[in-house]
Amino acid sequence: MKNIVILGSTGSIGRSSLEVISVFPEKFRVVGLAVDRNIKVLYEQIKRFQPEIVAVTDERAFQELKSLTGRSKKPLILQGLEGICSVAQYQKADIVISAISGSAGLIPTLTAIRSRKIIALANKEALVAAGKIIMSEISKNKALLIPIDSEHSAIFQCLKGVRKNSIKRIILTASGGPFIGKSVKELDKITFRDALKHPNWKMGKKITIDSATLMNKGLEVIEAHHLFNLPPEKIDVLIHPQSIVHSIVEFKDGSYLAQMSKPDMRGPIAYALSYPKRLKNVMKPIDWDEMVTLNFLKPDSKTFPSLSLAYQALKAGGTMPTVLNASNEVVVNAFLNEIIGFNDIPVIISKVMDSHKIESADNIETILEVDRWARKKTLEEISK
Amino acid sequence: MKNIVILGSTGSIGRSSLEVISVFPEKFRVVGLAVDRNIKVLYEQIKRFQPEIVAVTDERAFQELKSLTGRSKKPLILQGLEGICSVAQYQKADIVISAISGSAGLIPTLTAIRSRKIIALANKEALVAAGKIIMSEISKNKALLIPIDSEHSAIFQCLKGVRKNSIKRIILTASGGPFIGKSVKELDKITFRDALKHPNWKMGKKITIDSATLMNKGLEVIEAHHLFNLPPEKIDVLIHPQSIVHSIVEFKDGSYLAQMSKPDMRGPIAYALSYPKRLKNVMKPIDWDEMVTLNFLKPDSKTFPSLSLAYQALKAGGTMPTVLNASNEVVVNAFLNEIIGFNDIPVIISKVMDSHKIESADNIETILEVDRWARKKTLEEISK
Repeated sequence: MKNIVILGSTGSIGRSSLEVISVFPEKFRVVGLAVDRNIKVLYEQIKRFQPEIVAVTDERAFQELKSLTGRSKKPLILQGLEGICSVAQYQKADIVISAISGSAGLIPTLTAIRSRKIIALANKEALVAAGKIIMSEISKNKALLIPIDSEHSAIFQCLKGVRKNSIKRIILTASGGPFIGKSVKELDKITFRDALKHPNWKMGKKITIDSATLMNKGLEVIEAHHLFNLPPEKIDVLIHPQSIVHSIVEFKDGSYLAQMSKPDMRGPIAYALSYPKRLKNVMKPIDWDEMVTLNFLKPDSKTFPSLSLAYQALKAGGTMPTVLNASNEVVVNAFLNEIIGFNDIPVIISKVMDSHKIESADNIETILEVDRWARKKTLEEISK
Repeated sequence: MKNIVILGSTGSIGRSSLEVISVFPEKFRVVGLAVDRNIKVLYEQIKRFQPEIVAVTDERAFQELKSLTGRSKKPLILQGLEGICSVAQYQKADIVISAISGSAGLIPTLTAIRSRKIIALANKEALVAAGKIIMSEISKNKALLIPIDSEHSAIFQCLKGVRKNSIKRIILTASGGPFIGKSVKELDKITFRDALKHPNWKMGKKITIDSATLMNKGLEVIEAHHLFNLPPEKIDVLIHPQSIVHSIVEFKDGSYLAQMSKPDMRGPIAYALSYPKRLKNVMKPIDWDEMVTLNFLKPDSKTFPSLSLAYQALKAGGTMPTVLNASNEVVVNAFLNEIIGFNDIPVIISKVMDSHKIESADNIETILEVDRWARKKTLEEISK
């Protein structure tokens, strides 16, 4: 029996994780949940999964939850970042699913690593903003990090039993989002409602917009750089509209390994929870009775410049990926609130990156300070 | 430096093996070659690779080679099955590439196994005819068997680091050969020249005809059964016309691993020779600059009944696969000599199978006797 904590349990990954856990009650037990503010869903989760400890970031939501649960002693309910971190290092937890979206997940993830949990990581922004620190803490604490992003889970699965020096490069696949094939001009008229219609994956709002701009793939390139210790020139991206092949490893002999499945996040989540074993019937098998067609093509980096921005940030190094990530979070929010247009997203990020003086990304205070600076600077650029 | 012996060096796999070896002279040295009768090519190979020992099955070809090499003491030249077996167990050899086509490769392959060489196996018919004996000798002698068939190499590569109990099934891909999509009626008029035009692979005649009938895939199903110790219901076949995905492993969670490359036999050969390492730049990488399309569809077992015959033989067990294989060798030869038509191939094999009384496939004498019986019976059916 493994005890599980979920940071971000009311988000898309959090809910899928609980789905997986509920199918295997003899293998997993939920001991802790942490959320930002979605009390309505959290309260249902508490009733169903009976966690021992719970935390809510938002003060008002915390009070509401308190009054909902009344005098019940279980679960223990905590508040704020400190509360979230208490859940992240909860003593009974074996595995912490880090699924808070954005760089808000950074400190809780670091806390879980330092208490030597197995980290099932969906929060790519933490790795983008502070990859060097996270990976060094992982190795210092001999913690195990298993990616939940479908692409990185795919690479992780392909690399089992593989010698590092046999890898030529890795190829992350991208569905291309809802706007594949569109021109820059057509993208000018895009609204956030169009952008939220992802063809293959049902995901949270932020990642869905990131998929439409290809910034999601850019963040994943940076994530892969840290997870697999590969330089940018060994990480490539291919558009694969069917989202069946989740990523590919190319070996130096000209051979490739690819991981495939239906697009279903329960796959990578279950793999992270049961690693190195596999659970039974997590996803429906691919339907081979119908003819299956898989396409792969180069991304159109002129129409979708966000991917190039991410490579640029990774190559620049230091705190530049922190800036890319923070600025992107702010512009995506502005786009969702109809303050800026789709094509403004990369333009503003690029301006913020241009005005950043790179620092060494070795300590968390610098990261947090640069993160704040980039958010402020992005807001300035938006309001110009 | 690894010392290599090639059984069947003038065939398609033999020549590709020498190509691979010639690119890595610092890693591999040819110490022995064995062929049936192609002296012209063998003599060139002797001059170029300077083996220490050579064998020729055919008596006349042996005499010719003797007169070609004259008084030279190197290589030692031997004759007949005994000569081939001397090469197969040559003391200095580390790896024996077993690439004699048909069940003629059986005894030499067993000899190599018993002298505890690493066996790089291209001779699938040996496994089909006597899989139980070969696999038990492998385990008894703690020999290492690495498949060279592209499909089995693909599965072998996918299974590295994999727990056996996580496998749901394996899917062997088949190009479908030159006649995919044709009707039974159209196949009636097919000549051996049409059948030899394989769309993706340049191979020997026998295997090219086997590809056109899908019997090649059937033999590979039986081969996979022995190599990976999987029952017939866990081995499936999909038509994949592009021959880029060489095979697929399905795991019990609904995830798949696939191995890919350009269709190039140097890939699996180099992998077998360098295992567990990989050599550099063995094959050209897949050209992702152009859009890549991969299709997968179910095989049409009504039009190509040979595949079903193979499953039937495997399920029947005992000596039935020996009969399937021997009968197939004879009918393919008859088709190549324009004695029978394309659609007669499975009909005759089926008749021979129907008249066979299954025996236990535990000893090699039984296998050889059944092999002879099946050949004779097939000739009778052909001449009816």
